[in-house]
Amino acid sequence: MDERTKLEHARHTLAHLLASSVLTHYPDARPTIGPAIDNGFYYDFDFSHPISSDDLAVIEKTMRSILKTWTLVGSKTVSKEEALALFADNEFKKELICDIAEKGEAITIYTWGDFQDLCRGGHAENASQIDAGAFKLTHLAGAYWRGSEKNPMLTRIYGLAFATKAELDQYLHDQEEAKKRDHRKLGKELQLFALVDEVGAGLPLFYPKGALLRRLVENFIIEAQERRGYEPIWIPHITKKRLYEISGHLQKYDALYPPMELPDEDSYYIKPMNCPHFMMLYKENPHSYREMPVRWTCTTTNYRYEKSGELSGLTRVRALTQDDCHVFCLPSQIEQEVNLMLDMIDETYRAFHFDNFWVRISTHDPANKDNYIGNPDVWRTSEEALSRLIENRGWTHSTGVGEAAFYGPKLDFMAKDAIGREWQLSTIQLDMNLPERFELEYTADDNSKQRPVVIHRAILGSTERFLGVIIEHFAGAFPLWLSPVQVQVLPVGLTHTEACKQLADQLTAQSIRATVDDSSESVGKKIRNAEKMKVPYMLVIGDKEKDLKVLSVRKRGSKDTIESTREDFIRHATEKIVSRSHEL
Amino acid sequence: MDERTKLEHARHTLAHLLASSVLTHYPDARPTIGPAIDNGFYYDFDFSHPISSDDLAVIEKTMRSILKTWTLVGSKTVSKEEALALFADNEFKKELICDIAEKGEAITIYTWGDFQDLCRGGHAENASQIDAGAFKLTHLAGAYWRGSEKNPMLTRIYGLAFATKAELDQYLHDQEEAKKRDHRKLGKELQLFALVDEVGAGLPLFYPKGALLRRLVENFIIEAQERRGYEPIWIPHITKKRLYEISGHLQKYDALYPPMELPDEDSYYIKPMNCPHFMMLYKENPHSYREMPVRWTCTTTNYRYEKSGELSGLTRVRALTQDDCHVFCLPSQIEQEVNLMLDMIDETYRAFHFDNFWVRISTHDPANKDNYIGNPDVWRTSEEALSRLIENRGWTHSTGVGEAAFYGPKLDFMAKDAIGREWQLSTIQLDMNLPERFELEYTADDNSKQRPVVIHRAILGSTERFLGVIIEHFAGAFPLWLSPVQVQVLPVGLTHTEACKQLADQLTAQSIRATVDDSSESVGKKIRNAEKMKVPYMLVIGDKEKDLKVLSVRKRGSKDTIESTREDFIRHATEKIVSRSHEL
Repeated sequence: MDERTKLEHARHTLAHLLASSVLTHYPDARPTIGPAIDNGFYYDFDFSHPISSDDLAVIEKTMRSILKTWTLVGSKTVSKEEALALFADNEFKKELICDIAEKGEAITIYTWGDFQDLCRGGHAENASQIDAGAFKLTHLAGAYWRGSEKNPMLTRIYGLAFATKAELDQYLHDQEEAKKRDHRKLGKELQLFALVDEVGAGLPLFYPKGALLRRLVENFIIEAQERRGYEPIWIPHITKKRLYEISGHLQKYDALYPPMELPDEDSYYIKPMNCPHFMMLYKENPHSYREMPVRWTCTTTNYRYEKSGELSGLTRVRALTQDDCHVFCLPSQIEQEVNLMLDMIDETYRAFHFDNFWVRISTHDPANKDNYIGNPDVWRTSEEALSRLIENRGWTHSTGVGEAAFYGPKLDFMAKDAIGREWQLSTIQLDMNLPERFELEYTADDNSKQRPVVIHRAILGSTERFLGVIIEHFAGAFPLWLSPVQVQVLPVGLTHTEACKQLADQLTAQSIRATVDDSSESVGKKIRNAEKMKVPYMLVIGDKEKDLKVLSVRKRGSKDTIESTREDFIRHATEKIVSRSHEL
Repeated sequence: MDERTKLEHARHTLAHLLASSVLTHYPDARPTIGPAIDNGFYYDFDFSHPISSDDLAVIEKTMRSILKTWTLVGSKTVSKEEALALFADNEFKKELICDIAEKGEAITIYTWGDFQDLCRGGHAENASQIDAGAFKLTHLAGAYWRGSEKNPMLTRIYGLAFATKAELDQYLHDQEEAKKRDHRKLGKELQLFALVDEVGAGLPLFYPKGALLRRLVENFIIEAQERRGYEPIWIPHITKKRLYEISGHLQKYDALYPPMELPDEDSYYIKPMNCPHFMMLYKENPHSYREMPVRWTCTTTNYRYEKSGELSGLTRVRALTQDDCHVFCLPSQIEQEVNLMLDMIDETYRAFHFDNFWVRISTHDPANKDNYIGNPDVWRTSEEALSRLIENRGWTHSTGVGEAAFYGPKLDFMAKDAIGREWQLSTIQLDMNLPERFELEYTADDNSKQRPVVIHRAILGSTERFLGVIIEHFAGAFPLWLSPVQVQVLPVGLTHTEACKQLADQLTAQSIRATVDDSSESVGKKIRNAEKMKVPYMLVIGDKEKDLKVLSVRKRGSKDTIESTREDFIRHATEKIVSRSHEL
């Protein structure tokens, strides 16, 4: 058995152990369902009297004491009647038993000590496999019986469980760290963005510092694209319904905002993606094989009506600005074009310090060839090329056979942030469908008309989500090149303000973003404020520094002040900006 | 009598003359109405048989021959009955006569030779005032009687008329020139933008060259703003209805796209303007007088459902990207802030070679003080400041008393293009209304809460419209800094292609936009193609130039080739780009 399955079994066993402990303390509580989940387990109970989270400690303690002698006595298959008799006072279990019987499946009862539970199996083989220090009950929540709000509300007890105490501690530490890094909290503190009721959920507005961060991130991509021969186009944010009839999105895309209906014209939609606009622009002019590949990009905002319950800060939004790219190419150009995209992904992840990532290669299922459109040769050669390209770079990857869309294979890039959480960032998707639906063509060298292949690609995913991720990745303490304010100049007294302004102007002229804190606070308070705003460099200017020859430099997070000539400081900062260094 | 009125009288007289000539040739035609208009006149007739534009020459000739002896015999006031008798067989005139009588106005009849017409007056005093060479019939059009489609369709004959033949010729020449400069025609030829049926009218898509032009224009403004301490923010393109209830736009703004209606949530609108979003973001945080003025900008696209009949290329669109700016300031800062905006307008018009412009100052009507909201002192001082600022710069201006909006005075900038057509570009508008509606505040130095004043401002108006204007202003032959392709490198033969690519790379590395024409065309054809695309510099590379030491440079519009070392050429081009020169 692999470690993963073993852990899942332990978690499942802990759910039963939880139920056993609960019944020790609350004999009239009725256990219902208790599965293993990511990072732990839960169990839903019907309590006769409400319990509170203060009660969890004693339940957890009892779990540990039962665990010492906790052994699986055995399991048996019983008849429906026997099972119903066993759980005569538990309507919930009885409902489950009837469902299992109706499906004609076996009803199994597992027994540990004097506790028995209805269960399909999948447990730890013995209690010694479970580390008593590696689990922890965390919190209570309300949960409807079987997830339906028409049913009674039950009490769910959540627990964490890992293979070792060290892993549990790491997880708890990471959770604490994640809370500190929460981009919604930092977004407010660092004055990056706001969510405004009157504008709407999932539609963030960005203050100047956040808007600057957007531009830095977007321009990084735009410039990296430009160096590689990609050309920006521009498309409007709305379209007539007709476009989505052609593309097929009207029928199958479910996050469309409702249409803007007009009495005497086709209705309009706000675009949830850019592909159809790109296809139409390609179609407007004839194309020759000589000008292929056509590499078009557009950094533009899409609108998707995601469920309000799923929205969260910048990482789940309704307004998402994609660094979108569509390459129209000959089938023989797929490999070179994907490789160019991989170069860019490599450059981008380095710049943003995502050193740990892996690639999911989604390919077609050879057993179900009929599920896919397009030329089988193109499928075969392009899937081979994708794997080869990833392997050649030595990048970690896994192949999901049968996970490709019906219109082409795909690469997804999963990057780990500074505290080990995984985020899906870049995507490269081959498309043999839209060229067909839009009847796109190019003239081949034999003068015949041919269909191009389209490659969709986004590196960041969306500006908003990427910002959410990097705010948490850097805990708001951005590398110098990404910091909205790079240098805060702090006058010791009123008499030093003029020199500070002069210095800030000199830094600005050298393309270093500098501001002066001319508030009436003390220097100590000014330093604390700059630290709170995670400004990389603080320059304190008093009598000693006011001729601006030698500066007192304080780096973010450091208690020391370093002396540096103005020239040296500018040279040093510029070097760190240009190299996109994470060090100050 | 001023020249303008004199010319209008001559045009009105020519309308009567046209009617007289028409009756000479078509005795049963029934004249209806014929006014003076901009640049000329028209007259609407009810013809018994259709006429064609071929018939205009002879009508015009007869006008000239009548004109020789055309004298105003006199005018008389007649009774309704007399008038009706005079036009017994003309239902249209009879309808007019009854209308005039009903209003109790005098019915006047004017007589020239044997032609008489119902008229209110305002003619040339005698025919000698009219230059027989200074008018010309131009075209026919259908026009409903009194403009209503429920009425009969009449035939409208249009004529041009100016004070002198030279002016007419100039106008005809300008018209011809305007046709050649038409941005819709050039937009296609230069591969700048496309209008696509499936996307919708008034929603242009931009090819790479057009998208680049957009960025050059928008970045010019963004950089000019940044140098002056303006800060970009970012706002989404949609909003909940609630925002426009607060701003009042829902009630009074008529170009809104219809709402996106949702079953269980407030509906959403795509924004037609940015002000309400700006106001909300300001309102999110407390503000102190110390941080005022707050200068926020955003280059973002708005959507306005303009009537489809009014759409035209880029100059009348439904998707308009504004270089928008809102300054939140103390009343005492209005003058300094407007002055900063005027600096930017000055810089912008110079860069885009709009040397000829004037300013319309719209002020309140002191006779109707109750029509305006806000502090009367702010009105007075700000209107004085606006006038003073414009006068100090020596800019041509006119003041429209009573033309201010109810919420603040305004400056509009009217610029003349290369062929003398006037375009409204920039606007500066004071606003004392939105701060009130959104209850905006700042904390004053005495700790009291005060309302800021808002100044709206756009320099370009909109990117789309401005592009339409400059395409026509430059007839597509943009100054070097604005040219999408700055240098086209032309290999004489296949053996020179490699050297050309090397040269293009060298130019690109020096931030000069260069492409290679590696088609199989002859050099002559390549030059013609580059000329057609209005590329500023062509570099022809043959055996003589292939070591790239001395280049053969051909400037746009010139038949000569100049020899230049590569270094000199790069230095020369860079200087022209940096200085935004119009010369090559």
